[in-house]
Amino acid sequence: MTFQEKLDVIVKKNKSLVCVGLDTDVNKIPEQLKTKENAVFEFNKAIIDATHDLVCAYKPNSAFYEANGDEGIRQLKMTFDYINKTYPEIITILDAKRADIGNTNNGYVKYAFDWLNADGITLHPYLGSEALKPFLERVDKASIILCRTSNKGAGEFQDIVSKKGETMYKIVAKKVAEDWNKLGNCMMVIGATYPEELAEVRKIASDMTFLVPGVGAQGGDVEKIVKAGLNSKGAGIIINSSRGIIFASSGAYFAEVARREAIKLKEEINKYR
Amino acid sequence: MTFQEKLDVIVKKNKSLVCVGLDTDVNKIPEQLKTKENAVFEFNKAIIDATHDLVCAYKPNSAFYEANGDEGIRQLKMTFDYINKTYPEIITILDAKRADIGNTNNGYVKYAFDWLNADGITLHPYLGSEALKPFLERVDKASIILCRTSNKGAGEFQDIVSKKGETMYKIVAKKVAEDWNKLGNCMMVIGATYPEELAEVRKIASDMTFLVPGVGAQGGDVEKIVKAGLNSKGAGIIINSSRGIIFASSGAYFAEVARREAIKLKEEINKYR
Repeated sequence: MTFQEKLDVIVKKNKSLVCVGLDTDVNKIPEQLKTKENAVFEFNKAIIDATHDLVCAYKPNSAFYEANGDEGIRQLKMTFDYINKTYPEIITILDAKRADIGNTNNGYVKYAFDWLNADGITLHPYLGSEALKPFLERVDKASIILCRTSNKGAGEFQDIVSKKGETMYKIVAKKVAEDWNKLGNCMMVIGATYPEELAEVRKIASDMTFLVPGVGAQGGDVEKIVKAGLNSKGAGIIINSSRGIIFASSGAYFAEVARREAIKLKEEINKYR
Repeated sequence: MTFQEKLDVIVKKNKSLVCVGLDTDVNKIPEQLKTKENAVFEFNKAIIDATHDLVCAYKPNSAFYEANGDEGIRQLKMTFDYINKTYPEIITILDAKRADIGNTNNGYVKYAFDWLNADGITLHPYLGSEALKPFLERVDKASIILCRTSNKGAGEFQDIVSKKGETMYKIVAKKVAEDWNKLGNCMMVIGATYPEELAEVRKIASDMTFLVPGVGAQGGDVEKIVKAGLNSKGAGIIINSSRGIIFASSGAYFAEVARREAIKLKEEINKYR
């Protein structure tokens, strides 16, 4: 089964375009968990159990785990294993923003796709597609290319206009849509904080699926991004919220509060579909 | 002490601009080590002990360690600890090619600078300087920005020409040199396979130090890159060879052969300084 087929099934089953970002900062998890063994994993497990019927995907960001060294990576692996075993229909994305030259990428491919068994990984475009071949060749997994990121200063390079009058992020979008996606296993990252750019990329990339982070804490507007981002099938976007869901409460009932926030986001998205 | 001060001391002491890339692919290490506990670390230790008086820097590439999950990361940490304890004058660079948005980069900063205690890290420019702030603020550590990478298809984006007639990699170079480097803690990566581009960036970046990978296995020409890359002080480049040194032999005397290759590279570089 390809990434897209797996995604289509879970989107339909859970009626959801919500991705929960497991950006589990160990300093922010509830006091009751902090002293537990594998505290980060236990936190993730509670969030996953409380939201698994509301989402299409989970997206742990590698940085929050690497911050705790090999111990963090071990709990990241536990998290992927738990999702893959308990809720195998749900998409898993490693948000790792990797990209090295060809030979070296085999290491990241092994880490993300084979060891963690993630369904997809986020990637920088700067080195070009020749460098990313080890990812792009994996027809069973998604290569999710950064196109327009959600941060404030995203335009510093992404808005540079070429001699031919094309903006950088659109050049990335065109290359990915027309060339890199030959096997149908590419996606793009477009920040929820840039709905106009999202609409522009939708025009370029026909029905391709986008990963759209930046709602919730970062302030992306759900109505605008759903309207700008939907493809001709009424899907084609995975909308990620991290802190806005997982750290909505730091109290004893954090998982229930996270569930409530996930329901809210799911329903708000579906209102505009 | 800043990165640059530490670098200047060791370059002078060892009379060397050589960086050895510890790209330790577990499948390529000599048979005699493969069955040992901590085989990757033991291999690195042997290489380091055999070359420490010939180099200015070591550069493990994170991908080769991540390929082995938390176990790989543990041996990466052992490698950094060993260098920092045994040869504290030598520069350590984590070649990780990271870059996320602001908040998230704190995790990578913690991983690379605080947990591994690397002196520098390689970074993608695509998200802009606002995103990279957590790295750029660390005046004690080097932010080493990808400008012109050594791979064949590097030009796919890096050669795009802007409306103002500037090539993308030169736009990156200018921004890094004129703006991002306010604290004097930036470097740039320029592939040895592109000596002409290296010369162009030298014109833009005055005396800034460049990390130049791609000699040895990738075929970069030492004479050309030294002539194109040296700054006004006869230094300003760290020339990296990985496979060409560490996997020069897979026999029992691999460390001695690596030493011989490191001497050869050091002397060839110094011939043109």
